[in-house]
Amino acid sequence: MPNPTAAMLVIGDEILSGRTRDANMHHLAGALTKHGIDLKEVRMVSDDAPAITAAVRALSAGFDHLFTSGGIGPTHDDITADCVAAAFGRAIDIRDDARAVLQAHYDRTGTELNEARLRMARIPDGATLIDNPISAAPGFTIENTHVMAGVPQIFEAMVASVLPTLTGGAPLLSQSLRIERGEGDIAGPLRTLSEDFPDLSFGSYPYSHSGAFGAHIVIRGHDGARLDAAIQALSRLFPDDAS
Amino acid sequence: MPNPTAAMLVIGDEILSGRTRDANMHHLAGALTKHGIDLKEVRMVSDDAPAITAAVRALSAGFDHLFTSGGIGPTHDDITADCVAAAFGRAIDIRDDARAVLQAHYDRTGTELNEARLRMARIPDGATLIDNPISAAPGFTIENTHVMAGVPQIFEAMVASVLPTLTGGAPLLSQSLRIERGEGDIAGPLRTLSEDFPDLSFGSYPYSHSGAFGAHIVIRGHDGARLDAAIQALSRLFPDDAS
Repeated sequence: MPNPTAAMLVIGDEILSGRTRDANMHHLAGALTKHGIDLKEVRMVSDDAPAITAAVRALSAGFDHLFTSGGIGPTHDDITADCVAAAFGRAIDIRDDARAVLQAHYDRTGTELNEARLRMARIPDGATLIDNPISAAPGFTIENTHVMAGVPQIFEAMVASVLPTLTGGAPLLSQSLRIERGEGDIAGPLRTLSEDFPDLSFGSYPYSHSGAFGAHIVIRGHDGARLDAAIQALSRLFPDDAS
Repeated sequence: MPNPTAAMLVIGDEILSGRTRDANMHHLAGALTKHGIDLKEVRMVSDDAPAITAAVRALSAGFDHLFTSGGIGPTHDDITADCVAAAFGRAIDIRDDARAVLQAHYDRTGTELNEARLRMARIPDGATLIDNPISAAPGFTIENTHVMAGVPQIFEAMVASVLPTLTGGAPLLSQSLRIERGEGDIAGPLRTLSEDFPDLSFGSYPYSHSGAFGAHIVIRGHDGARLDAAIQALSRLFPDDAS
């Protein structure tokens, strides 16, 4: 049975302007691979309602799971929750359970639950809350879509609480070999090898440094013994250049 | 007149599996912002022909420019050029001009231009070549789509040769202020301020470290004097917490 599929939607002007380098995509990709869910597509859009809503519709329909990151804070540019509600045709308002979570947190820290902070209790009808152990304001899951914060520390905590609730497939295993030859010398033998192991996937990731060219060959699959066999066959093809 | 818009398509299994952290998106985002082209959307897909072709069609139709990264090397998983040709309904084959570039390079380095390397001379009909000063194998531009290598050093060189040929708008300027207050305290005054400066965009990027919460407020626009005025107004709102 093939693994479940997933997409990710990263929301925020700061990524697209080059000001901030996204870290959440890389984290989620690694966590999903370990859990046996195949991340198939990532989109990054700005804080623009039609763009967010359209992306949520397309990705939630196209994959088993959608994970979003960003745009659920208290400021006026945080519009993700409303866009997700619109994408699923749900009403959205301040919800008592989310408000109670925030109230308890701010009572503990002696902070006022003002109008801006109350925005973070806006949750679409029918969604279940995702726990935020860092700063209380919850994420939520609606249908197959998991809406999480953009701050990496909070995003990672939310991923850690959502992933165990999802059925994963066989974790994708990988082994790699560095070959100190130009990719053009590797390509022919690699294609033949990949035809001998149709159950595995073969990737070639070229590098260059100090004028020397080479490639990392990464073999992926679900059967460790087959991976071992393929990596040994590969290293026999390049006895002097593989490490 | 609004700035031209752009999208980026990052192609490759290694990004989506979490093995490699993409660097090209961050580089392109910064370069486009300086050049006055607004990056509006990024997609990342795996080495899968239907996914690549569909994304090229959607993004080249939706934005003024599309930049792609990855999948133009010599190995069997490098299928970007063929997918771009399919997306634009063009024929593709080994082209004499690209073959000549490769032949000259491999003659110089004493390397055989074998069948695998010749794959890198496959260029869609009507495309113009993009120079690759690092390893010769060219990228290409077809209609509004710029097809570039995934290796960061080569990608950056190709961006540097393509960007000066594109008409940019006013570079997007930005100024930022760090405010050591929870975003919930900043949100109300920030919304009012943003209404006083409708020509500027206001972003709030929360952070937390060592248990302290704060936010970087970034104001963006095309008029430096207006930015100065807005940032001064903002710092007057938080005289004790802004830096």
